[in-house]
Amino acid sequence: MGYTELLIEGRNAVMEAFRSGKPIDKLYVLDGCQDGPVISIKREAKKHDTIIKYVEKERLDQLSKTGKHQGVIACGAAYEYATVDDILQKAKDKGEAPFLFLLDNIEDPHNLGAIIRTANLAGAHGVIIPKNRAVGLTASVARTSAGALNYTPVARVTNLAKTIEELKKEGLWFVCADMDGTVMYDLDLKGPIGVVIGSEGDGVGRLVKEKCDFVASIPMKGDIDSLNASVAAGILGYEIVRQRMQ
Amino acid sequence: MGYTELLIEGRNAVMEAFRSGKPIDKLYVLDGCQDGPVISIKREAKKHDTIIKYVEKERLDQLSKTGKHQGVIACGAAYEYATVDDILQKAKDKGEAPFLFLLDNIEDPHNLGAIIRTANLAGAHGVIIPKNRAVGLTASVARTSAGALNYTPVARVTNLAKTIEELKKEGLWFVCADMDGTVMYDLDLKGPIGVVIGSEGDGVGRLVKEKCDFVASIPMKGDIDSLNASVAAGILGYEIVRQRMQ
Repeated sequence: MGYTELLIEGRNAVMEAFRSGKPIDKLYVLDGCQDGPVISIKREAKKHDTIIKYVEKERLDQLSKTGKHQGVIACGAAYEYATVDDILQKAKDKGEAPFLFLLDNIEDPHNLGAIIRTANLAGAHGVIIPKNRAVGLTASVARTSAGALNYTPVARVTNLAKTIEELKKEGLWFVCADMDGTVMYDLDLKGPIGVVIGSEGDGVGRLVKEKCDFVASIPMKGDIDSLNASVAAGILGYEIVRQRMQ
Repeated sequence: MGYTELLIEGRNAVMEAFRSGKPIDKLYVLDGCQDGPVISIKREAKKHDTIIKYVEKERLDQLSKTGKHQGVIACGAAYEYATVDDILQKAKDKGEAPFLFLLDNIEDPHNLGAIIRTANLAGAHGVIIPKNRAVGLTASVARTSAGALNYTPVARVTNLAKTIEELKKEGLWFVCADMDGTVMYDLDLKGPIGVVIGSEGDGVGRLVKEKCDFVASIPMKGDIDSLNASVAAGILGYEIVRQRMQ
């Protein structure tokens, strides 16, 4: 595993990258450009939920490494995603009950990086993220993971609810964090487990929540609504560590 | 202390500022935006007779200091720092044993904001930060605190080690997070307590650490060195919550 940032420049190359399913995190487009090929690329980017940034020519020139961007530069991850099987195998190799983090549409790269960092230190075997509408493994994620991305496998799946279904067949239990759940200290969180953390704004989606065996709540003793997603992942993740250590 | 203009950015932070009665002079809203949360904010602003200015995205981007305004920026009075006595009084008023967070030179505003947010939800009575070499209460901190800055008092002191000395006379115990400590689950963290969190790079300073009664370690089961500071604060803070709930 490992990570280097990948820049794809020029109209044909960018279009090909989208069509071949390369993980592209961000697309820089020349502001105001209405050329046919650029419009097609933008359409493709929207289809893949890629973040589009409209920038001036100077910014593109600055970003460009080849000097031939033709008004479009795509930023992708050269990071290799793992498979869910890789993650389960890692648990098996260590002779431990699987311990996974599943992230339901985390959009902030700092949160994703911090959660991968936490997953590593909590002894989790991997992190599963959805393909669409969520941030991927960008340079920013790699940086905030503080190196954890080199050790903790991250798998990307099309449908999180379906993945949960399949992992249940492998004997895993699933717990999601939500305010209307049972206080986490009162749940038995030992054994093979997947922890589901919701997005910053909306929490865990309904379909995913329905697949979970438990809903755990972190006690809230204050005035505001919710914890930061990466802090919540740390608190719930370490409650599992505590119970496993007993 | 004293008055300085403060920008509050982002939907949650602006809404919380209105609800908690912060004096807001002016609200900038993205022209034409009809999103539910933005409509709620406008309603709240009218209730408080706040001047509403409808502006283009470019104007908001220009005003924004965090780059994450989500279509709303409020201009208000700067946050007043509390005193350490205010924090102790808050505990007394609630009839609870004091529970404080002390931050030894946190430099990242996102971490400071997230820790204030966590302190609020963990039921802590306040946060103490040092005057020098640390980030203060900026717009970015206010935003990442998700409104907690309106409820949880933050005091700024010249010398953290000296403040710890003084608070010990009030009966507080101090625990700092560091790798060479006793596993936190094996410590008795009930009673009046101050939790000391070190800076992102260097951890807790030597002078401050020497003043602490306990050194607590969060179990590290991975390959990398340390957790993100705000995640560590959440995990150790919630171990205190757990023990207090027993």
